[in-house]
Amino acid sequence: MSRTINFSAGPAALPLEVLERAKAELLDFRSSGMSVMEMSHRSAVFLEVLKEAESNLRFLLGISDDYHVLFLQGGATAQFSALPMNLAASIPRADYLDTGSWSRKAIKEGAKFCDVNVVASSEQGGYTRIPDLADWNIRKDTAFLHLCSNETIGGVQFKSFPSLEIPLVADMSSDILSRKIEINKFGLIYAGAQKNIGPAGLAIVIVRKDLCGQAKNETPSFLDYSAQAESESMLNTPPTFTIYLAGLVFSWLLDKGGISVIEKENEEKASALYQVIDSGGFYSCPVEPEFRSNMNVPFRINTEELEKIFLDKAEQNGMFNLKGHRSVGGMRASIYNAVPVSWVEELVAFMNDFENEYG
Amino acid sequence: MSRTINFSAGPAALPLEVLERAKAELLDFRSSGMSVMEMSHRSAVFLEVLKEAESNLRFLLGISDDYHVLFLQGGATAQFSALPMNLAASIPRADYLDTGSWSRKAIKEGAKFCDVNVVASSEQGGYTRIPDLADWNIRKDTAFLHLCSNETIGGVQFKSFPSLEIPLVADMSSDILSRKIEINKFGLIYAGAQKNIGPAGLAIVIVRKDLCGQAKNETPSFLDYSAQAESESMLNTPPTFTIYLAGLVFSWLLDKGGISVIEKENEEKASALYQVIDSGGFYSCPVEPEFRSNMNVPFRINTEELEKIFLDKAEQNGMFNLKGHRSVGGMRASIYNAVPVSWVEELVAFMNDFENEYG
Repeated sequence: MSRTINFSAGPAALPLEVLERAKAELLDFRSSGMSVMEMSHRSAVFLEVLKEAESNLRFLLGISDDYHVLFLQGGATAQFSALPMNLAASIPRADYLDTGSWSRKAIKEGAKFCDVNVVASSEQGGYTRIPDLADWNIRKDTAFLHLCSNETIGGVQFKSFPSLEIPLVADMSSDILSRKIEINKFGLIYAGAQKNIGPAGLAIVIVRKDLCGQAKNETPSFLDYSAQAESESMLNTPPTFTIYLAGLVFSWLLDKGGISVIEKENEEKASALYQVIDSGGFYSCPVEPEFRSNMNVPFRINTEELEKIFLDKAEQNGMFNLKGHRSVGGMRASIYNAVPVSWVEELVAFMNDFENEYG
Repeated sequence: MSRTINFSAGPAALPLEVLERAKAELLDFRSSGMSVMEMSHRSAVFLEVLKEAESNLRFLLGISDDYHVLFLQGGATAQFSALPMNLAASIPRADYLDTGSWSRKAIKEGAKFCDVNVVASSEQGGYTRIPDLADWNIRKDTAFLHLCSNETIGGVQFKSFPSLEIPLVADMSSDILSRKIEINKFGLIYAGAQKNIGPAGLAIVIVRKDLCGQAKNETPSFLDYSAQAESESMLNTPPTFTIYLAGLVFSWLLDKGGISVIEKENEEKASALYQVIDSGGFYSCPVEPEFRSNMNVPFRINTEELEKIFLDKAEQNGMFNLKGHRSVGGMRASIYNAVPVSWVEELVAFMNDFENEYG
């Protein structure tokens, strides 16, 4: 079987080993005579799957007992609402940083549930940088400060996070598990699964316990962090098969050597691409170097005609999903954890060849 | 490979053919060189999967163009909130019928978002029947009437549905696709997937178009029917692999001959079980005969000691998940579409043997 080189932004490539294991045990999970997706979420076998997934995630990211780890449906978009419903009840105000498309979505949804203040925005420069911390106009009496750690569309990534007195909240959908994070800097971290965790249909919420238990009355119970924590993510039936696959991804990461190993690999993959982009003046990346994402690498060529030829030829060479998001155009290589170094090497070689031919 | 006989109430057994096909194409879907779960939800290949699933579901249930069909995350529990948020905005009142555990959950959650009136309840008799339509105390100016078509825990099922002037809303999580339904009697039907549709992590909402577009301002956008309809269930990333599996289940149903064939099979499976239960005085079913579910068959034996022996011996004979819900005790056989007639025959034989030995 020939495996396609897949640079999709999400749902995205999964580790081949994970898919092979899922395939091998799809009809008979742990000698139960049934598929893991046919089991009660309250069965001993599935409870073990969930427990293992949580414990491996806690180990990988160094999450202490001060935090709940929740496995919820609805993806990150559901968290755009759940967050202010849960955290901005007694203080009905929240501050948001605007660094691109995903920040804006969180802001728009947040404003349905509380008074929202945008502390700073890089919109004017075309979202090519992260505003300086000194310019963030954070209010005194605000429930939290929200940011998006990696803008999937724009390719802008935080390289370090501030220590704030108010709870810092991060949408880490597109770079969770890609690098070491000081969890204790955050009040809450959430992430949709379909980039670095598993298939679509799951969000992981890591929330400091003391921030829970104060949700608005009108919070749907399945989005109530405290209620879900008390039920161990089983207030409603969780997406069992998706959680199982996420667990396989966590095990795969552990087997690889954990976050420090994947972080180094991710840096190498990204820097190989940025090197080609910066080297000849043929390609360009709009993002300022210090904020460039190690997960989503957007790049352009001078003319849209050449970009089209680039994308066509890439597919002819077995490289798919390199088209940039429709809102920004150009190209984008999403190189999450599961994208092997060899795929990036093939892309680098192709980019060099293409530049030699058309540059 | 020996397949376990699985009477789980949900997540529940899936058709073996569906699992085998999912396994066969898990690493390479439609010659794409990737898994269906690794593809963008906006890719041509996945859009085809979603389109086929919707069109087959519409055909199976006879759903006209007057209705949207939405594929959403959050399961039925999310719909307990989404329903009043979407339908009880201009008229902030809704009426509910109480026939058991799942009705009660819908009522409790609904009351967070609108003024709720319970039109009738069978609680006093221990939820063994459905209150007579003549006794439903429906208010004049109410947004909708909600009922649960099949109580998974109690084993109580509607055999026909009333024609009402206000929108009739049904939670059909545990009997959708099990029998013919006059869709036009309903304003809205919703169902969590993990019983008759596919794995957990998906809800299907069938909603009359004229009821959409009036959601409360504070409705999370991913729960807004109108917004999801406009985005063709892609306002947020849908649970792609779960939708793919649901589509395989719909194809399997079509290949079997559609709803009329499975309905007959379901009636035969259920009546074989109720016949053993009623025949000897050894087993009993608390539900009044005319309201007995064809999907979930609860039954008791005189003593809890014997029930424990029954459950142990059933497992020794390869029959699993026959324990009744912890809130009611006893036994329960969930015999959804995917449970083959042969499994029910084995259970019937076992029940007869057990009665002969212990009766």
